[in-house]
Amino acid sequence: MESIDENSNRRVISLGLGDPSAHTCFRTTYVAEKAVLDGLQSQKFNGYAPTTGLSDARRAIAKYLSCDLPYKLSPYDVYITSGCTQAIDVALSIVARPGANILVARPGFPIYDLCAEIRRLEVRHFDLLPKKGWEVDIASVEALADKNTVALVIINPGNPCANVYTYQHLKKIAETAERLNIPLIADEVYGHLAFGSKPFVPMGVFGFTVPVLTLGSISKRWMVPGWSLGWFVTSDPNGMFRSPKIEECLKKYFDIMGGPATFIQAAVPRILEQTDEAFFVNTINVLKQTSEICFNMIKYIPGITCPQKPEGSMAVMVQLDLSLLHEISDDIDFCFKLAKEEAVVVLPVGLRDWIRIIFAVDPSSLEEALRRIKSFCQRHCNQLQDYQ
Amino acid sequence: MESIDENSNRRVISLGLGDPSAHTCFRTTYVAEKAVLDGLQSQKFNGYAPTTGLSDARRAIAKYLSCDLPYKLSPYDVYITSGCTQAIDVALSIVARPGANILVARPGFPIYDLCAEIRRLEVRHFDLLPKKGWEVDIASVEALADKNTVALVIINPGNPCANVYTYQHLKKIAETAERLNIPLIADEVYGHLAFGSKPFVPMGVFGFTVPVLTLGSISKRWMVPGWSLGWFVTSDPNGMFRSPKIEECLKKYFDIMGGPATFIQAAVPRILEQTDEAFFVNTINVLKQTSEICFNMIKYIPGITCPQKPEGSMAVMVQLDLSLLHEISDDIDFCFKLAKEEAVVVLPVGLRDWIRIIFAVDPSSLEEALRRIKSFCQRHCNQLQDYQ
Ligand SMILES: Cc1ncc(COP(=O)(O)O)c(C=O)c1O
Ligand SMILES: Cc1ncc(COP(=O)(O)O)c(C=O)c1O
Repeated sequence: MESIDENSNRRVISLGLGDPSAHTCFRTTYVAEKAVLDGLQSQKFNGYAPTTGLSDARRAIAKYLSCDLPYKLSPYDVYITSGCTQAIDVALSIVARPGANILVARPGFPIYDLCAEIRRLEVRHFDLLPKKGWEVDIASVEALADKNTVALVIINPGNPCANVYTYQHLKKIAETAERLNIPLIADEVYGHLAFGSKPFVPMGVFGFTVPVLTLGSISKRWMVPGWSLGWFVTSDPNGMFRSPKIEECLKKYFDIMGGPATFIQAAVPRILEQTDEAFFVNTINVLKQTSEICFNMIKYIPGITCPQKPEGSMAVMVQLDLSLLHEISDDIDFCFKLAKEEAVVVLPVGLRDWIRIIFAVDPSSLEEALRRIKSFCQRHCNQLQDYQ
Repeated sequence: MESIDENSNRRVISLGLGDPSAHTCFRTTYVAEKAVLDGLQSQKFNGYAPTTGLSDARRAIAKYLSCDLPYKLSPYDVYITSGCTQAIDVALSIVARPGANILVARPGFPIYDLCAEIRRLEVRHFDLLPKKGWEVDIASVEALADKNTVALVIINPGNPCANVYTYQHLKKIAETAERLNIPLIADEVYGHLAFGSKPFVPMGVFGFTVPVLTLGSISKRWMVPGWSLGWFVTSDPNGMFRSPKIEECLKKYFDIMGGPATFIQAAVPRILEQTDEAFFVNTINVLKQTSEICFNMIKYIPGITCPQKPEGSMAVMVQLDLSLLHEISDDIDFCFKLAKEEAVVVLPVGLRDWIRIIFAVDPSSLEEALRRIKSFCQRHCNQLQDYQ
């Protein structure tokens, strides 16, 4: 993990990758580790699992998700995937047809665009509104949709915007999808990682209004993205989306995909049912703390602003004011020069003059990184003053 | 695993699924289990691996495969997949283009047909010749190929034919692919599981003649199909297939796929380098023994024949003589009635009047299953005599 910058001899700090597992403050719980260990050591799970997933794991995930829903998911609604990443591929593949398009937020998670390209789906980007807590611009969704639109993707809690949507806003989104007669793809990989004032509400709550394809994993809440254990779930109590044809199609996809290790699947019931509440509380506290460090320190850095206090997930959007930051031509140039001059890695998001900062980093490294970002920005702002 | 037949009150014996991990005689080695345990317990591998695979694992697989090749594979030739299953999807996806077809053996492994259907590739089936050790009918390959043919799939050691091809035959196949100007997809998931007179020769040996995409996994040789750890490898020392464009394309595929667990990847170097030769020797001995039980007992069962002694893999093709087996209408009916009457599961292969029998089963269960198959066949043959 650790690397040293050749020029400055300083430790490189990455605020680029959403993988907190390297930091001791985000270590997974022993309950999860022990469940996987036991699964392996039992020698009962070295063989194939059914391609759609081990039935005990499907049942446990159905139960886990049903806790927050006004109806009960069936184990047959749940398909086990190699992380949420593979669940995205399943969702996009299952809705794809020639000429189809999907609606994806900008800024968003780039795997959707890549996956859509590979599965030959056109992507249309609607805006999230930074000044309104990164809510969906419903008007722009409606303007983009046409008869070839096959799904609307919503990430909540959001990456990279750290948004947590209210019940009311999610309802509006669901009603929009209902009007457009398209299913919602609800990426809830950051489910429950909400530390602001708003609670996490799963989109499946609106499953009676519109069929929801819920994507998730244990990667983020349990801090084990390397375990590759995710799910694709049809939150569709009225059976508007599910049909024998869709089920057959899903079955075929899962037959050719190669899923997560059987012994990790076998651990899922214990992971979901026996994780101590204190582990979750601690995670939320640390994320709240690091998100506040990030938000508060950025207030005092010239040339960059964070328009919205982070309320969930692990990443936040930061806007560059290039009129102040001289010698920085754009977001990519900012990231490039920051890495070179300060050994701090942050990434652009494909949105002009915005960057993404991961705050799920141990507090002292985060503070050090933000201090370096501050010197960097001060230096580049001062240069402007020097020259004037 | 164990289930009891409701009618006969007998234990159901499955000779249907190629998963020997349930049988104690095919238990994996402690070396492999310990390597995975250590990977997990180190807590260093809970995070994301690079999407193309952990570099130490890629390096170890390159080294492992290079032992049997006249050139050295680079770690960059190796991409880590969720089992060989996912490697098949990668291979077919990477050669697919509109209107393309691939050549696949009949009998073969049904995932190729399913995957081709999903990735919109036409499949053309060439024959394997049961009387010639299930060699490829080269003339039928040449007759099927046209300008839209993009690859030829070879499974060696073979499933479901238990074939192991000679160097000479593989050379002929490679030269045929060279003439047709198409890469070979070499499914070597059963690599090294050869227990007859012929040694296993990897297709990559002919990489200078034609580019070979080698697919494999630890599923079979290490008896851990549930670990989902496989590889897609470009065995292409002249760089005839690899190009910056293909590499970019592969990278994109791996970005959206979701690979195997990082801590299992971390165990790969130890698994490949430290497994005791005695473990492999024992596996070969048990497979030799069970394949001979199967072959020899079938000689004395009326109405079914095994034209070719198994030399590798875990499954063998058995031909039905329906002129003797009255009241059995075809292979599907045979499997159905056998399951019903004798609580023995065998599967059809989509080839009229042939079935596949898995012999990687503990010897006593295998013998019991074959005794039941014998009573079944005798009964159905006797009925014929009774009626005449
Ligand atoms: C919005 C979003 N969806 C999906 C994923 C992938 O999740 P997983 O690690 O479970 O594959 C990520 C990972 O960062 C993400 O941010
Ligand atoms: C010929 C062949 N290829 C590929 C596979 C899949 O291998 P894995 O279990 O590593 O996904 C199998 C499994 O039986 C097989 O028989």
